[in-house]
Amino acid sequence: MTATPAPASLESLDLDPAFALHRGGKLEVRSTIPVRDADDLSLAYTPGVARVCTAIADTPSLVNDYTWVSNVVAVVSDGTAVLGLGDIGPAAAMPVMEGKALLFKEFAGVDAVPLCLACTDVDALVETVVRLAPSFGGINLEDISAPRCFEVEARLRELLDIPVFHDDQHGTAIVTLAALTNAARLTGRSLGDLRAVVAGAGASGVAVTRILLEAGIGDIAVADSKGVIYPGRDGLNTVKEALARDTNKAGHTGSTEQALAGADVFVGLSGSTVAEEAIASMAADSIVFALSNPTPEVAPAVAARHARVVATGRSDFPNQINNVLAFPGVFRGALDVRATTITENMKVAAATALADVVGDDLRADYVIPSPFDARVAPAVTAAVAAQARRDGVARIPG
Amino acid sequence: MTATPAPASLESLDLDPAFALHRGGKLEVRSTIPVRDADDLSLAYTPGVARVCTAIADTPSLVNDYTWVSNVVAVVSDGTAVLGLGDIGPAAAMPVMEGKALLFKEFAGVDAVPLCLACTDVDALVETVVRLAPSFGGINLEDISAPRCFEVEARLRELLDIPVFHDDQHGTAIVTLAALTNAARLTGRSLGDLRAVVAGAGASGVAVTRILLEAGIGDIAVADSKGVIYPGRDGLNTVKEALARDTNKAGHTGSTEQALAGADVFVGLSGSTVAEEAIASMAADSIVFALSNPTPEVAPAVAARHARVVATGRSDFPNQINNVLAFPGVFRGALDVRATTITENMKVAAATALADVVGDDLRADYVIPSPFDARVAPAVTAAVAAQARRDGVARIPG
Repeated sequence: MTATPAPASLESLDLDPAFALHRGGKLEVRSTIPVRDADDLSLAYTPGVARVCTAIADTPSLVNDYTWVSNVVAVVSDGTAVLGLGDIGPAAAMPVMEGKALLFKEFAGVDAVPLCLACTDVDALVETVVRLAPSFGGINLEDISAPRCFEVEARLRELLDIPVFHDDQHGTAIVTLAALTNAARLTGRSLGDLRAVVAGAGASGVAVTRILLEAGIGDIAVADSKGVIYPGRDGLNTVKEALARDTNKAGHTGSTEQALAGADVFVGLSGSTVAEEAIASMAADSIVFALSNPTPEVAPAVAARHARVVATGRSDFPNQINNVLAFPGVFRGALDVRATTITENMKVAAATALADVVGDDLRADYVIPSPFDARVAPAVTAAVAAQARRDGVARIPG
Repeated sequence: MTATPAPASLESLDLDPAFALHRGGKLEVRSTIPVRDADDLSLAYTPGVARVCTAIADTPSLVNDYTWVSNVVAVVSDGTAVLGLGDIGPAAAMPVMEGKALLFKEFAGVDAVPLCLACTDVDALVETVVRLAPSFGGINLEDISAPRCFEVEARLRELLDIPVFHDDQHGTAIVTLAALTNAARLTGRSLGDLRAVVAGAGASGVAVTRILLEAGIGDIAVADSKGVIYPGRDGLNTVKEALARDTNKAGHTGSTEQALAGADVFVGLSGSTVAEEAIASMAADSIVFALSNPTPEVAPAVAARHARVVATGRSDFPNQINNVLAFPGVFRGALDVRATTITENMKVAAATALADVVGDDLRADYVIPSPFDARVAPAVTAAVAAQARRDGVARIPG
């Protein structure tokens, strides 16, 4: 007997409501059609199903009409960069990927399948997702550590004709851009007026920087654990080398805190901390997004002594930068028009739509909508679908 | 614009009720827990989920208690041997795999995810499934052509510590054994009294032969398209060479039809036809299972002129040999005790339980229960779980 009985402590674990909620998992696969009798079975399965298979074999695009494929996203992780927990492996990553899948369904009606893979090599990850691709309408990459995540996404975008979206990068980037757009508007400035410092050059730090550059930020300096990135600095991988070329017009060479002196915007995506003095040294009407979870780079109450707008990644403070504001609508919009990819324009369009939901209610403690604002997903969906059509990547015309 | 609009003929396709039923697919992924507000979200997703992830990282077996993994089966195909349609590729195979998944849920509460893979190489299939394994409690292989299917299954059984089951082989084998056991009982014989001829040495033919040998069939000859298999015959792959050693005590060397003279049992799994004269040449009280779909090897009405018991694979004749009688309960039983594998004994136990459902109602036109008999899945489940414990492959003790 190879029996390994469940630990006797399950009951005690379940005293924590998070564990009690997770018992048995959070997802199920259900039939959307009735199977009550032999007649139903003969249509849903053999022999009726054979006619549908034959039609798809003859006209491959029919797979989108007569299977669930065009509404299903694979949530793919290797478990190497899970939340703030780091490399905990594929099994331990599953609760996060299940959670992601249920958010896809709850917020946008997208069916999502959590797939935690037992491989971390870039070639293996790419190859595996390519083999899985016929079964999915889109690929959401999740919690894959940098810098591998950049190459995995780039290669999959090249190889596949369905949307591939690394949410840790682009979900965060879209929501950050939306919140920053509104924060700038609140203080009577445009993005081009702002000088920003991003702490963190992992997946989210790089993507936030890229979308802010795309959206026309005035200047932006990016720091990793060794300080601000500049051309020729030690310890740059190819992704950071590219960032060094495209950022930091001001020529900073020191620490995050040094770069903050006089800056308009701080975006923390680093898991580290920033001293109150550095926040205090920022320009008037400063904007502080301390997004690390569960511990922001600077406590919101402390930041609020100096900054005009403060946002975090937490649900228990105002202005939560939460990816769930973006990814459900981004995929819903892309799937609705059967987009072949998600363009940079589609991401910016998602951010603009998200910012616009705030509208005239804009306040310092309301630069971004609540995750439970029912207007969000439809607004993002419509913007992404329309932009896909404008960009010529929609298979279903308008 | 790369638009490839759906064919204008969708509406006309949908005049066929099978197509109308398949519009949009047959499955969805749903949440099993509520996500109504920020409190729910903070337990189901960040920050609460991090505690569950950490617990699994510390105690890996907890993945079975706090995720859906232990109730999820991957239905994996490469689309090379779909129904009677052959190699139609992964996309065109999806309607069948979706159908399989919904049957898993409807008949046994097993969540199943259809995965049609864009690779057919044995190494690639094995490698891909191994990488996917952390996300699943079991692997149902489906519609992978012979002889690759044998190696794929054997290697995965060796590499993984979760059940791996090629349904085209073992589902058919279990149901055939159950029906044949009852047919023998009806005619006052045991399996050891019977001399059988199996037409077809693909996935199902090989597996049916193996389970009948395991169950003690008197003699069995297997024929492929070149005739009965015997040692040294031309055109034998390694699987058929092994069959040649283990079967055909009678030493047949001719055609299926020649071997049928005086035989007690015919099992057709070939997609070909058998002449009425050959059926007529069988022994008294003969048993004819003409299982090819949609066209049986011999028409049931023709077979019934000569045979005591006739079974087919079709729902519109009595005695339907339908895999749905086996696979839902086999996986339900294996998952319930977290079996590390599915043993030969477990398959025979499933067949015995399935045969026993017929009980005292045994008649020539009722040697196997209906797929909609609600007693079937619980009976198979209980038998498989109990046998897993007896065989020492259950992780949850009794």
